[in-house]
Amino acid sequence: MQSDSPDFFRPIRLKEKFDRLAETWQPRVVAEMNDYQFKIVRLEGDFVWHTHPETDETFFVLDGELRIDFRAGSVTIGADEMFVVPKGTEHKPFAEREVKLLLIEPRGVANTGDAGGERTAQNDLWI
Amino acid sequence: MQSDSPDFFRPIRLKEKFDRLAETWQPRVVAEMNDYQFKIVRLEGDFVWHTHPETDETFFVLDGELRIDFRAGSVTIGADEMFVVPKGTEHKPFAEREVKLLLIEPRGVANTGDAGGERTAQNDLWI
Repeated sequence: MQSDSPDFFRPIRLKEKFDRLAETWQPRVVAEMNDYQFKIVRLEGDFVWHTHPETDETFFVLDGELRIDFRAGSVTIGADEMFVVPKGTEHKPFAEREVKLLLIEPRGVANTGDAGGERTAQNDLWI
Repeated sequence: MQSDSPDFFRPIRLKEKFDRLAETWQPRVVAEMNDYQFKIVRLEGDFVWHTHPETDETFFVLDGELRIDFRAGSVTIGADEMFVVPKGTEHKPFAEREVKLLLIEPRGVANTGDAGGERTAQNDLWI
């Protein structure tokens, strides 16, 4: 969007975006920066072990508490905290209670990485 | 940092990082994702008009209210809101009261872009 459009001058309000997203484990794109995407997602429960062989992946917790398990340990991320999972590092997100999360990663990265399977969400859906 | 290091399993706590950063207009890197950096910065008052000809730039407001002026209008961004300034778009941040901000952009981008001058902060300083 160009700066001569009236729609240009609007901030991206994450709370309003979350109000329109009820489902868990369904990322929705809210913004793009070059070839990277910002996606909001609600997580609750356990995910699948997977790896992104080609890219780092950033988790920014907006509300709640997220645990990311690794083969050698785990990290717990609270609100206004973030974590970057290095590329090629196997991991599994887990949320005992619902978490609101901002994901930042290159366009086209699947949520299940190399693992695939039934938990793979459709990509490039905007909200 | 690799996942076999005990230091690996620590979230990046932005509040703790801000406690260690008193100065305004001095970005500090808190994390890297591929060739992108996450930087915290406190802003207060007026900045200089500038452009980043080579990249988009993301502003994520953590606390306070930021206005970004453009030649054709302005956008006001509150807490938990974000905005992506498209590459090549002249802009000027302004904060009437202090704002805590997370900046996301490729490594090596100067805060004053193509404008340079005395407001240019040192790059690649971590906190």
